[in-house]
Amino acid sequence: MKLQSLNTPAALIDVERMTRNIERMQHRLNALGVSFRPHVKTTKCDQVVQAQVDAGARGITVSTLKEAEQFFTSGVRDIVYAVGMAPVKLPQALSLRRQGCALKIVADSIVCAQAIVTFGREHQEKFEVWIEVDVDGHRSGIEPEDGLLLTVASTLVEGGMQLGGVIAHAGSSYDYDTHEGLVRIAEQERSRSVRAAQRIREAGMPCDVVSIGSTPTAMAATHLDGVTEVRAGVYVMLDLVMHNVGVNQTSEIALSVLTTVIGHQRAKGWAIVDAGWMAMSRDRGTQRQKQDFGYGLVCAEDGEVVGDYVMSGANQEHGIISQKGTPDYDIEARFPIGTRLRILPNHACATGAQHPVYHAIAADGSVETWPRFYGW
Amino acid sequence: MKLQSLNTPAALIDVERMTRNIERMQHRLNALGVSFRPHVKTTKCDQVVQAQVDAGARGITVSTLKEAEQFFTSGVRDIVYAVGMAPVKLPQALSLRRQGCALKIVADSIVCAQAIVTFGREHQEKFEVWIEVDVDGHRSGIEPEDGLLLTVASTLVEGGMQLGGVIAHAGSSYDYDTHEGLVRIAEQERSRSVRAAQRIREAGMPCDVVSIGSTPTAMAATHLDGVTEVRAGVYVMLDLVMHNVGVNQTSEIALSVLTTVIGHQRAKGWAIVDAGWMAMSRDRGTQRQKQDFGYGLVCAEDGEVVGDYVMSGANQEHGIISQKGTPDYDIEARFPIGTRLRILPNHACATGAQHPVYHAIAADGSVETWPRFYGW
Repeated sequence: MKLQSLNTPAALIDVERMTRNIERMQHRLNALGVSFRPHVKTTKCDQVVQAQVDAGARGITVSTLKEAEQFFTSGVRDIVYAVGMAPVKLPQALSLRRQGCALKIVADSIVCAQAIVTFGREHQEKFEVWIEVDVDGHRSGIEPEDGLLLTVASTLVEGGMQLGGVIAHAGSSYDYDTHEGLVRIAEQERSRSVRAAQRIREAGMPCDVVSIGSTPTAMAATHLDGVTEVRAGVYVMLDLVMHNVGVNQTSEIALSVLTTVIGHQRAKGWAIVDAGWMAMSRDRGTQRQKQDFGYGLVCAEDGEVVGDYVMSGANQEHGIISQKGTPDYDIEARFPIGTRLRILPNHACATGAQHPVYHAIAADGSVETWPRFYGW
Repeated sequence: MKLQSLNTPAALIDVERMTRNIERMQHRLNALGVSFRPHVKTTKCDQVVQAQVDAGARGITVSTLKEAEQFFTSGVRDIVYAVGMAPVKLPQALSLRRQGCALKIVADSIVCAQAIVTFGREHQEKFEVWIEVDVDGHRSGIEPEDGLLLTVASTLVEGGMQLGGVIAHAGSSYDYDTHEGLVRIAEQERSRSVRAAQRIREAGMPCDVVSIGSTPTAMAATHLDGVTEVRAGVYVMLDLVMHNVGVNQTSEIALSVLTTVIGHQRAKGWAIVDAGWMAMSRDRGTQRQKQDFGYGLVCAEDGEVVGDYVMSGANQEHGIISQKGTPDYDIEARFPIGTRLRILPNHACATGAQHPVYHAIAADGSVETWPRFYGW
């Protein structure tokens, strides 16, 4: 199988770029003296996760219990389910633990902690629970100074569960685009998480793990004192949103969508391609950032950016390619019907999710098919 | 299987609503004296397509050759692939026709028409080709008065292919929100398509089919003189974008996503649920419309809208539910942890695509699992 014989649209992984991205993050976190637990929601793909584990990852992070089930079957034992536990899903978590999976679950409320305690006692299972800390008002979690933190902790400990640690994610780091800003939010994520752990320990309860992370903060942190592990997901592929945040160059993005030119609207300077939002996803993450790439940035079939063309519009299976700024009325000559292009995505997690498989392109041009799964 | 025992997040189809939507469109087009060829890209689901065919649909429209292959295997013979033909995909189209599929393909350029002719002659296959007409500058196609129209037509006819007709889609109909505007764009779609067919016939070439359609124009057209068939896709589920266009009430939307409340941020008036953009899609189609529903409108588990709550934010597997306008600081009491909600989607085609299966809820409360496929 060669790149030239792939049907379009198709999701491509540049394996050299992916390997460099994995190594860079692993080396960085080794140097900072913390464990690395990649978030596998980005790819949901065995071959990618195997490469992350081979490079030194210790355990994985998942966003669904289905991911936990699939990767446990593939041989990964140490798994954090990083979404607040819905009581109704406890039987699924129990089943994983009974099979030998070292699954950790997350709570940020008394109701949730009590549900875990009640269910755990009923089934004689000492669940390992991490308490979610809110470090930036982004989403879930308990603020480090909130009295609730110790109430949830003691509910778990007195209920006989294993309080494993605290977990935080500075999701707001995606909103920054300067080095100073990123360093500041990284330090905020670190210090508030460490503070939460300190309060739990001072109250006489255990808190071994301090788990933090996002790709931007992991890349910006200057030290990680008090942190035991970092989580990050999109770093493995990178994308245009991360480019705008300041994490990477476009030449480091490992994921792209291969597409074919199927028509033109000459008077508008448009080329029409056979990848629409079904292949790119509806993610418009660069819309509010300093450079809006539409639905993606156009590269030649070999993966090099060509000029300043973006996918400026998308229907389900049609994409509109146009030059940024002034229309290119010669676009028909530049990209004739049948031309194959690669489109770099706004958001690698969302684009990957639209595809049943990745086509992994090795340095020698050979292509492997790497399945990915979806659903819950 | 009951609704109450479904894991979350899950895509639900209200079968009664779906059946009403199918019947209404079929009756309307019967009354207008045209055939109906539903676009199955919306659901990619055998059971839904079977219901459409049972109600009177004549053939189907597809957006990928994979859809054509899957539905041909399920017994549908008359299929239009409504995306401009990429020459590289001609072998796939040939294979379908050789198996007995009455596949029609689409061209809007000389390059494409010539490629079809060359390939068709090489393989002694008389492809049926429809010429795409641009009725509103939305995307692809040839304007009815453009000289190119007759050049493409004669390329096909002289090359020995079967020129089956013209095909148009007024995609800009989604941008309207008044009855008058919709009636006007529907008439524009009709009259320009009929005009293109007339020019081809006046030049002595055949043009049996005049195929037009979108859900908004199909619902708004006052007459369809000269049209032979209509295509529409999202009408079968309907959604919040169509609601804002003026096509439907929220109580007619047949697709929703079932989700569970997993936490709160009381000070912000937020409930956190286990459906994020992975379950809803990244589609923010109502963002530019008169009512912005965020990532979706909140209903109780039974499918009735409750108050004025929307999914105001979404991460991959987290959704933020909040009241529009003023925060509801009592949201924790209103939607306690474990509460199950249904979220109506912005765009049924995009939301459905995120799910491996639909859970079809019948009037008696019984639940069937209807698989859907994806990929290319």
